[in-house]
Amino acid sequence: MPYVNIKITKEGASADQKAELIAGVTDLLQRVLGKNPATTVVVIDEVETDNWGIGGEQVTIRRSRGQ
Amino acid sequence: MPYVNIKITKEGASADQKAELIAGVTDLLQRVLGKNPATTVVVIDEVETDNWGIGGEQVTIRRSRGQ
Amino acid sequence: MPYVNIKITKEGASADQKAELIAGVTDLLQRVLGKNPATTVVVIDEVETDNWGIGGEQVTIRRSRGQ
Amino acid sequence: MPYVNIKITKEGASADQKAELIAGVTDLLQRVLGKNPATTVVVIDEVETDNWGIGGEQVTIRRSRGQ
Amino acid sequence: MPYVNIKITKEGASADQKAELIAGVTDLLQRVLGKNPATTVVVIDEVETDNWGIGGEQVTIRRSRGQ
Amino acid sequence: MPYVNIKITKEGASADQKAELIAGVTDLLQRVLGKNPATTVVVIDEVETDNWGIGGEQVTIRRSRGQ
Repeated sequence: MPYVNIKITKEGASADQKAELIAGVTDLLQRVLGKNPATTVVVIDEVETDNWGIGGEQVTIRRSRGQ
Repeated sequence: MPYVNIKITKEGASADQKAELIAGVTDLLQRVLGKNPATTVVVIDEVETDNWGIGGEQVTIRRSRGQ
Repeated sequence: MPYVNIKITKEGASADQKAELIAGVTDLLQRVLGKNPATTVVVIDEVETDNWGIGGEQVTIRRSRGQ
Repeated sequence: MPYVNIKITKEGASADQKAELIAGVTDLLQRVLGKNPATTVVVIDEVETDNWGIGGEQVTIRRSRGQ
Repeated sequence: MPYVNIKITKEGASADQKAELIAGVTDLLQRVLGKNPATTVVVIDEVETDNWGIGGEQVTIRRSRGQ
Repeated sequence: MPYVNIKITKEGASADQKAELIAGVTDLLQRVLGKNPATTVVVIDEVETDNWGIGGEQVTIRRSRGQ
């Protein structure tokens, strides 16, 4: 019954990588807490780099400096 | 003053259906808890089926099996 | 499969009222979008009035003025 | 280490305005609570006006009336 | 830089189990997407069973039936 | 009409500091985007240090090392 929300910057994660995240986190919750995978929900949000800030600045700016 | 966030898979909900969700949930909060509709906020997120997992797999995969 | 998060101020909603919100929003999603109630998840967050702001001030302050 | 999520309607906020929101909120958390800007994360969600409700109706409808 | 929010019902997860969830999901994001663990943020919300609904009813009710 | 959610670790923020965050972020949205303060909602979540992870470990652990 857990609900997991993963937010990452939109920088080309493939469908297969997203499938791997969903399977991995569902498995983790079963192993650690015995949660039923059948009702574990995982939602991935991919956020534009202009809309994600860290250290007070946009990821877009950081990427342009090679960070 | 309540804030409601509804997350659904992006599978063709129409503008009218979304209007109905907004009106319905605002009305529900007024009926059950006496909340003022004027300041009730509802945000609907439509999520790609590749980004939504249940039972450890993507909705895209489930849909391809007719689930 | 929808996920709904309802945030309200912590001002004494009863267990029965919360049950009514859960039943009501699950029913709404079935009626409007045909969503399966069995996998509809609803999470209610009750937030201290010191931690909720509207109009630039805390709900605690507004309540002290009778708003 | 704070995490801030800002949700606004998608109505043309520029990259510069979003940069200003990110810098402003990061600075605010440093001034008020002494939080380290280096690990302050800000995520901005821009939501279609059909998907945002207030007062029981979509922002799209309100905008069409000049509100 | 990812942000992960895990919501579970408040039913006695220990500090060690929560540590394991945090380590596990941070590791998963590094393995699958190459995300830097140093800036991966994980927030766990533990929700009262009265405030969590699935299948249109509270988890409290389901637990009382042994589900 | 914006909605802002601020998550911080629960480490003694006072009511006055929370009031300052609410006023500050509401003002920021008015200055940068012209958003109406009357309908700007701010919700602050204070999260136990056991439930907040960064760098793959709990804040509780980091604090015990003086970080």
